[in-house]
Amino acid sequence: MHQAGELEPIRWQDESLLLLDQTLLPAQERWFPVVNVDEAIEAIRTMRVRGAPAIGVAAAYALAAHAARLPDAPLPRWLDTLSAEAARLAAARPTAVNLAWAVERALQTARGTGSVGEARERLLALAHRLREQDIATNRAIGAAGAGLLPEHGGVLTHCNTGALATAGYGTALGVIRAAWEAGRDISVFCTETRPWLQGARLTAYELVRLGIPARLLADSAAGVLMAQSAVHAVVVGADRIAANGDTANKVGTYTLAVLAHAHGIPFYVAAPMSTVDPATPTGEAIVIEERPADEVTHVGGRRIAAEGIGVRNPAFDVTPARLISAIITERGVLRAPYPAAIAAAIAAASPAQGVSA
Amino acid sequence: MHQAGELEPIRWQDESLLLLDQTLLPAQERWFPVVNVDEAIEAIRTMRVRGAPAIGVAAAYALAAHAARLPDAPLPRWLDTLSAEAARLAAARPTAVNLAWAVERALQTARGTGSVGEARERLLALAHRLREQDIATNRAIGAAGAGLLPEHGGVLTHCNTGALATAGYGTALGVIRAAWEAGRDISVFCTETRPWLQGARLTAYELVRLGIPARLLADSAAGVLMAQSAVHAVVVGADRIAANGDTANKVGTYTLAVLAHAHGIPFYVAAPMSTVDPATPTGEAIVIEERPADEVTHVGGRRIAAEGIGVRNPAFDVTPARLISAIITERGVLRAPYPAAIAAAIAAASPAQGVSA
Repeated sequence: MHQAGELEPIRWQDESLLLLDQTLLPAQERWFPVVNVDEAIEAIRTMRVRGAPAIGVAAAYALAAHAARLPDAPLPRWLDTLSAEAARLAAARPTAVNLAWAVERALQTARGTGSVGEARERLLALAHRLREQDIATNRAIGAAGAGLLPEHGGVLTHCNTGALATAGYGTALGVIRAAWEAGRDISVFCTETRPWLQGARLTAYELVRLGIPARLLADSAAGVLMAQSAVHAVVVGADRIAANGDTANKVGTYTLAVLAHAHGIPFYVAAPMSTVDPATPTGEAIVIEERPADEVTHVGGRRIAAEGIGVRNPAFDVTPARLISAIITERGVLRAPYPAAIAAAIAAASPAQGVSA
Repeated sequence: MHQAGELEPIRWQDESLLLLDQTLLPAQERWFPVVNVDEAIEAIRTMRVRGAPAIGVAAAYALAAHAARLPDAPLPRWLDTLSAEAARLAAARPTAVNLAWAVERALQTARGTGSVGEARERLLALAHRLREQDIATNRAIGAAGAGLLPEHGGVLTHCNTGALATAGYGTALGVIRAAWEAGRDISVFCTETRPWLQGARLTAYELVRLGIPARLLADSAAGVLMAQSAVHAVVVGADRIAANGDTANKVGTYTLAVLAHAHGIPFYVAAPMSTVDPATPTGEAIVIEERPADEVTHVGGRRIAAEGIGVRNPAFDVTPARLISAIITERGVLRAPYPAAIAAAIAAASPAQGVSA
């Protein structure tokens, strides 16, 4: 399915989930094991694993690792214990829907079994399947979206939506990669994405690794580059897409959408259908996680901000559907009116591919 | 004129310019001397002194210090030498107009004298006068603009436009301070202002010192705060205002103006008339300085970005006049149509206050 040398940040080894620690990249490439739900919650909250699709796949593996170690008990009681742990895991981060989606898939799988042993086996099989599906899905998103990017020109992206944010290949960065691999002469502008610097640390790392021409910029430099006609398309990922197309994504996405609209530049969202949450009617219903103040006041453990200052640190924002030129999914390119396009894409999901609310 | 305890980053002592090193704030408050043009150029380029008005006043003092040490010679030759040095100083940073303005004022002053001794005296007197005028001007800007801010509500500002960016009191931050001192119940949102972190380091420091309620945010969080109706006005400074009102200011200003416009939030520029450049017809004629890549790839000397990535680091952007609700100056609040309002404000300048092209 994928080439040798691919960056894939989620592995299974020795009955444990192995994660490439994203807090240490790009300075260090260190893998660490996760063997239970508590360790997974810690890894997710501290963003050692981040990116909506990656969190979903990691959660499925974490439940498999947890189940492997959960002592034998009569199946209903064993399932009750696992479900309680799973509920805690699902609540580790509130905005991205993929986490809750993967946990729910895992619980459904476990409940449909006849023994603890079978449940353990099927939980692990599900995690492997979600991982493989995620990579295949991302390649399909890339194939669907590559043609939307310019033949020649600048493409701006935000945060990290590459292999590191997923099981592999990436969503928005997957579209950029697919366009590049298809021979489009694109040059990437990559926002650094404060406060967590996903762009500077992770996207820049992936772009250098892939050999795609790219330049890093402060988030606030996007406006002047658009005004100078250097940007011909914007493509970003998503953490949750409401039924009407409103899209929650990394803070700053909404600003880029407003800027793109003001300059007549197409603005694309690239995400798997698992990011669509039909239970969320509009963006107003999406909870925006407020992250710790020290992400803003400190960089790399060193204080940069004046002592005593208060902080606002919303981790996400919501881009209204009217600012989105298209949503690129593994089921093709969805366009406005989004409520109908999204409903049709959900209806087209085959059970084997498992898109469900 | 100003109260005890005021923060005033530019002093004259022992025939030297003394500057509060802005690269070390807020961690350290260290003063360093500048005794000639080369040291002044270095201080300006490395941003140990920054902020358009502060650079102007510092340049006048730097020429006085240089003149004090420039060996005696027949006056015309002495003036030629000083002029050549002054031209190098004026070119240290290209975007802000106050630097060139102050250098030109100093040269005019020196040329109008009858002896080297008199020239030295008058250069120093000019520097003192520019410093005092800048503080008085800023208080006048504050008084003119305070009434534009909300009685209750959130005010967003960008970069540092406070006492540290000027000889004292500040421009946009002076308006905020004047509104606060007049009893307005405002709460400040202060962008961190990557890459140089003027907001996190300097504006946050000043706001804490002044006791004004304030919260720091990543630059890209301004959009979601506006969408949540938390921001009721935006006020920023300026590095150069063209004859038509187009305004060059710290990169990210244009993005805030586009966002404010999209949300119907008033967007104010606060600046002394010395920032107005009638010789620049529109923003298109303003040179945008590209600063070194390591400002983006490093924080506090430590690399944060992936190795091998390219960088774009425009230090400024241009906000078109149509996005500016008003320009707050020491001559009052200017409103569209700006070409006429600006021309009238320039015409109203008395020779003693010395606004000239």
